[in-house]
Amino acid sequence: MFFKFIKLAFCCCYFFSVPLSAKESTEFKIRNTDTLQIKSEVSGLEYELYIRLPNDYSENNKKYPLVLLNDTGYSVAVASGIVHLMAGRDIEDVIIVGISYSKGHNPLLSRTRDYTPTYAPNEKRGHSLEVQKYSGKASQYIRFISDEVLPLVSQTYRIRQDKKVFVGHSYGGLLGAKILITNPELFDYYILGSPSFWYDNKAMFRLESDYAKSNKSMKAKVFMYIGSQEGSMVEQMLAFENQLKSRNYQGLSVRSKVLSGLTHHSAFAVLLTDGLQQAVPKQGKGS
Amino acid sequence: MFFKFIKLAFCCCYFFSVPLSAKESTEFKIRNTDTLQIKSEVSGLEYELYIRLPNDYSENNKKYPLVLLNDTGYSVAVASGIVHLMAGRDIEDVIIVGISYSKGHNPLLSRTRDYTPTYAPNEKRGHSLEVQKYSGKASQYIRFISDEVLPLVSQTYRIRQDKKVFVGHSYGGLLGAKILITNPELFDYYILGSPSFWYDNKAMFRLESDYAKSNKSMKAKVFMYIGSQEGSMVEQMLAFENQLKSRNYQGLSVRSKVLSGLTHHSAFAVLLTDGLQQAVPKQGKGS
Repeated sequence: MFFKFIKLAFCCCYFFSVPLSAKESTEFKIRNTDTLQIKSEVSGLEYELYIRLPNDYSENNKKYPLVLLNDTGYSVAVASGIVHLMAGRDIEDVIIVGISYSKGHNPLLSRTRDYTPTYAPNEKRGHSLEVQKYSGKASQYIRFISDEVLPLVSQTYRIRQDKKVFVGHSYGGLLGAKILITNPELFDYYILGSPSFWYDNKAMFRLESDYAKSNKSMKAKVFMYIGSQEGSMVEQMLAFENQLKSRNYQGLSVRSKVLSGLTHHSAFAVLLTDGLQQAVPKQGKGS
Repeated sequence: MFFKFIKLAFCCCYFFSVPLSAKESTEFKIRNTDTLQIKSEVSGLEYELYIRLPNDYSENNKKYPLVLLNDTGYSVAVASGIVHLMAGRDIEDVIIVGISYSKGHNPLLSRTRDYTPTYAPNEKRGHSLEVQKYSGKASQYIRFISDEVLPLVSQTYRIRQDKKVFVGHSYGGLLGAKILITNPELFDYYILGSPSFWYDNKAMFRLESDYAKSNKSMKAKVFMYIGSQEGSMVEQMLAFENQLKSRNYQGLSVRSKVLSGLTHHSAFAVLLTDGLQQAVPKQGKGS
């Protein structure tokens, strides 16, 4: 009787579980990826971390550079495909870590809250005045990255601590600039695409000036990019580059490119391709 | 007793099926995607079709351009991210369809068999002499696309039949050239990246000459790209462009770009960004 029951139970399992699996399997999955759940002790917010490992990760004991992404709605897909093609050929293979928007929240609210450096309830160029009410929590988010995300992924995966790359686009680029003037050594390389330096009456220029008053060093390699079709954002990025260079910070290297013919949204895949070649060129290839 | 059994069976289902689901859910899934299974009547081979629909697909009755990809190990991820960013801003929104490698086969064998135009068992620049034994089945694969893949996706999704875009890179670019001289009107736009025109002693140049002997028209818009770091492949692509232009085919438009500083593998995301802007620019933006 017991065995008969087990057999029937297995039939039921098959009946109930297979359609569920079949349904799940219809979405396109990116190979070599995994998801970690993380609840921030700093903010109480919950996030997912999307990890993409090198193809041969389990076949050796090597450590790999880390590439940290935000805005994972598009960035994980683009970066996974680009790294699949370029790793071992144009660039070193890397471990990609993408931080999701906070679970249960509107992505536009989440990125406004987490990626902007100042509280600016009246900023009309943001996503909406409604989400601007939540703005200005980048410092809290940076503590989440430094105290929780990086320790977790460093404990879980074999990461080279001297080759950590931050990638941010738009508000994500603004976040990267905020990290530079908060804890520049958190990453070794910063790929900042189309940064939103217009935010809150160019707040980042003022925040950088404050940093300069009490700091002589900024140990980081920064690559900034902007599409030539991004209007006043082009000169703002070049002005921020000039402001950084004028400080003669110890340890800082800054380079920028204006990408011909590209817009705010067409620039991302192009700048990521170039930025990875600059930050983690295949050994033997010059930076 | 019956209800008790059902309850126990459900417990078992929970016990057995949840870990399975939990395991599956850890891979990164691209939003708005679906997978169709297809067995080719032409070849007997089985494939998967990976579909990415526009965000607002279910909210309207519009028809969308089709973007057909091969080499889906990287192309679906890159294209999904790029389209997520650019759709409705730089380009029209599109339906992406990626054709997998044939199920159960080595991807290198699959792409050598399906994407190459001639049987060339001694071609040493291919993946290996072992997989070259299977080479030269592009005509069969093109029939699979025309007679099976496109009818299936056209029946299943709302596709604009006047805006079908083929994207191919490397051997996939060679396949696109083969489609041009087999059934040019199968697609309206061809984005051919870093095409392998060296294949089989430049067989594609001879095949195109054969086509020219009995055809005066080639109704297609072709955009070819190559990285400036691709050595002799640069001049081969330009030579193929010149050969096409010298025919003065009715209905043919060909343009090409040499992408500065890029290699065979770094060129893809850049050429896809540009190619989509050329083929399906947002209405109001010039091609």
